[in-house]
Amino acid sequence: MFLQNCWYVAAWEHELKETPLLARTIIGQPVVLYKAANGTPVAMADRCCHRLAPLSRGRLEGDNLRCMYHGLLYAPDGACIEIPGQKAIPRIARVKTFAVAARNKLIWIWMGDAVSADRSLIPDTYALDHPDWRYRPGYVRFGADYRYILDNLLDFSHLSYVHAATLGGSDLIAKAKAEVESFEDGVRIRRLTLNSPQPPFAKPFLADGINVDRWHHYEIRVPGIMSMDSGIQATGTGVPEGVRNNALEFRAYNLVTPETERTSHYFFALAHNFATDDPSTTEKLHAEVSKAFAEDEAMIEAQQRAIDETPDLKMVVIPADAALVQMRRILEAKLARESATPAAL
Amino acid sequence: MFLQNCWYVAAWEHELKETPLLARTIIGQPVVLYKAANGTPVAMADRCCHRLAPLSRGRLEGDNLRCMYHGLLYAPDGACIEIPGQKAIPRIARVKTFAVAARNKLIWIWMGDAVSADRSLIPDTYALDHPDWRYRPGYVRFGADYRYILDNLLDFSHLSYVHAATLGGSDLIAKAKAEVESFEDGVRIRRLTLNSPQPPFAKPFLADGINVDRWHHYEIRVPGIMSMDSGIQATGTGVPEGVRNNALEFRAYNLVTPETERTSHYFFALAHNFATDDPSTTEKLHAEVSKAFAEDEAMIEAQQRAIDETPDLKMVVIPADAALVQMRRILEAKLARESATPAAL
Amino acid sequence: MFLQNCWYVAAWEHELKETPLLARTIIGQPVVLYKAANGTPVAMADRCCHRLAPLSRGRLEGDNLRCMYHGLLYAPDGACIEIPGQKAIPRIARVKTFAVAARNKLIWIWMGDAVSADRSLIPDTYALDHPDWRYRPGYVRFGADYRYILDNLLDFSHLSYVHAATLGGSDLIAKAKAEVESFEDGVRIRRLTLNSPQPPFAKPFLADGINVDRWHHYEIRVPGIMSMDSGIQATGTGVPEGVRNNALEFRAYNLVTPETERTSHYFFALAHNFATDDPSTTEKLHAEVSKAFAEDEAMIEAQQRAIDETPDLKMVVIPADAALVQMRRILEAKLARESATPAAL
Repeated sequence: MFLQNCWYVAAWEHELKETPLLARTIIGQPVVLYKAANGTPVAMADRCCHRLAPLSRGRLEGDNLRCMYHGLLYAPDGACIEIPGQKAIPRIARVKTFAVAARNKLIWIWMGDAVSADRSLIPDTYALDHPDWRYRPGYVRFGADYRYILDNLLDFSHLSYVHAATLGGSDLIAKAKAEVESFEDGVRIRRLTLNSPQPPFAKPFLADGINVDRWHHYEIRVPGIMSMDSGIQATGTGVPEGVRNNALEFRAYNLVTPETERTSHYFFALAHNFATDDPSTTEKLHAEVSKAFAEDEAMIEAQQRAIDETPDLKMVVIPADAALVQMRRILEAKLARESATPAAL
Repeated sequence: MFLQNCWYVAAWEHELKETPLLARTIIGQPVVLYKAANGTPVAMADRCCHRLAPLSRGRLEGDNLRCMYHGLLYAPDGACIEIPGQKAIPRIARVKTFAVAARNKLIWIWMGDAVSADRSLIPDTYALDHPDWRYRPGYVRFGADYRYILDNLLDFSHLSYVHAATLGGSDLIAKAKAEVESFEDGVRIRRLTLNSPQPPFAKPFLADGINVDRWHHYEIRVPGIMSMDSGIQATGTGVPEGVRNNALEFRAYNLVTPETERTSHYFFALAHNFATDDPSTTEKLHAEVSKAFAEDEAMIEAQQRAIDETPDLKMVVIPADAALVQMRRILEAKLARESATPAAL
Repeated sequence: MFLQNCWYVAAWEHELKETPLLARTIIGQPVVLYKAANGTPVAMADRCCHRLAPLSRGRLEGDNLRCMYHGLLYAPDGACIEIPGQKAIPRIARVKTFAVAARNKLIWIWMGDAVSADRSLIPDTYALDHPDWRYRPGYVRFGADYRYILDNLLDFSHLSYVHAATLGGSDLIAKAKAEVESFEDGVRIRRLTLNSPQPPFAKPFLADGINVDRWHHYEIRVPGIMSMDSGIQATGTGVPEGVRNNALEFRAYNLVTPETERTSHYFFALAHNFATDDPSTTEKLHAEVSKAFAEDEAMIEAQQRAIDETPDLKMVVIPADAALVQMRRILEAKLARESATPAAL
């Protein structure tokens, strides 16, 4: 069961340039995405109403989309406007459309009733379109329930083990205490790791040998929108007091969209505000963080397979699970509220 | 659920030369096919009665078939005639056999009670073994319910879209009106497309630039036997009046045999009666039509996946569906009659 | 349903050198195996108690095993002894362990209650660690229910057909009568094949052209432990009377461990006591017997697929099935006894 009435990331904006008719399944529903001539994104059910052929195998004709099985033509509002060889078009000949919005290089989609799609609720991802920040857009598909991906993001102790050779570099992150606080839509976490060896991914940007202080301050909102202020700076230069001093600063966005019950889209970006005139820095950071997400993918998919193979095993809850327990509770409450609300249509 | 008491195409005759023990699943039942020394085809259940090993992994010994697991030997009538190391052979040691017939280069099989297998009911495919006609036998396996393949054949408006670059070439086919008439065993369709650009597949055989008239006159019988009289000739030379004048004439056979609920055998041939002394013409036409059936395969398998992923979506019926609606009704009626009839055995 | 309270082969001992953390599923339960510093084998459930990540993706730290998701550390007795960032360790934080034993180059595991694991019940496989015998350890994974593998081993008539080109060489094995006798834990079989052509696999070790006598005397114990005394010697030199005279003698162990309902581990060794100072003899025999087990694998997996595709077909029982019928009865009785016994835990 998935939340319907919330904004999900459907795609990076650049994907619609590379694939003019993008087929993407979101919370179990097949969607075709494209851009109208004026740049507005369009999203409709990826099924011709006639014989259910995927419209993503169709042909764009101006802003309209023609099914390439028997030629039915659809307007961006989902109405069928032409059936070859036939004059009358039945009123039921239409496909479902979804509210979509382009914002900060991302295409967002609202899978529930389009009338209730409030664009002011689109989460803030300002660093994805801001002159002070650089990043490369990333994407990976996980063979796992999106909730296990959220669990992973909600407990950064895994950096010490899963990412020992990339983002971690010592067991001090796992040993640092995280402050967790929940709000209506999610969870806020603050974690300071002091006087630690340098994490492997950041070594090229740090002076040799010095120890560092690190911060990971982030929030995760339902359905799966994580935005983080994180950074690294030489130990003793101010981090515990909140002073940033020649720090490596990052804004990270990890945006999880369920594809099916067992697969998930994972959009990510690690934006940095240092060396912004050096594209190779952006490339190197993107390569390192991509390596780290491949480590996550391997572990989370192994966990998913483990759970599927032995579904009766119980999990033992430990204090480090505080954030994920709170997040699950928030998610369950929202799901319960949706299933209690009569659908608008 | 499949029709039992009807003739299905089991194989092209040449396949039994290339694969002396041919394993083929037909309407969900595994069958092994071979030819006896005198050329008569034999079909039996592809399961040794002892431990259910596939007989298609066996060894032909004259007209008999030996299971290569523990050596049981079967006569063409399905009776076990030898069990190594044992004198008495239990009467229940036998495998089911099926009525089969070779006709016009095809091997036909009757999956129901062999007693009721009337060879006079084998559909006519004369052009497959006639000196005036040339073709190459074709085969493709579809990952789809055979009924979606029949639907495809029953509505040629798809030529304009699925086969825009091969058999189609313009949207005039979709716009032409088909005459549909049903009979006890199926549906007859007549479609004239006049004054149309040349279809890509026929360009090598037509004068440059002229427009053409086309006809597609065919019938489809249950379970899935299509035979077609089709052709192309210069516009203005007689097609609407039925006069054939320097026409490119074809006899096409598209023969669909269900393999399982989700997979189908598709035997096909496009026979031509022009340039019959030029084998390269036969090759070119076979290559073009094979390309077109790969286009169908891609679309129909996409449709099948779409239906399986979102099984609750309803299809909107349009006038172009007349033939397929009638065909489904005929098929359902025959299935209902079979399930109401007590089996002979 | 699998027997719990019996010894299964978990691995060849050499596998734990090559793969220090060996993941292996046994009777449907995922297990991680490793060796403590003193050589004692350790087996625990391959699931961290926290978030169910596989421990086989973990890290050995001395004799302890650390989960590499969030860093929980386990002692060889399954108790969690460290949770990073946390002082108290809940008593329920532990994973299940299994009784294991190294014996004659094999690692044996008892999947039931460890308290009842009686090492004196480990089956005898003396020739696997004896100066008079040479062999190479073999392993193959079958995509089949282990009972079909036992069936195969219980009826050597299949040597004449499945292994016509390797272990068989004539239909005389199938025609020879096997003496079958059952005991509490399994079945004993004696089969003499007299005056037979040489089996292909043994030709390099026999004088050209002579006929041979062969014996296959073996027992198979539940769950799937076969040990065999087999051999080949020139016809007329004493086999029927039991005299061994310049014989090629073998001790064969075929050790079947269910992995899942549809897959099985198959550990094997063909030990010989001739040409023991010639490693190439050992290699050649291993290569031949590996070829033969690939033949079995192809046939048994085809049988498994056949049964799965047409599950309603019945098997016809013939006299050659005597041993397998008895073995199934013994297995069923033991399974019934286990399900009637309250578990110790």
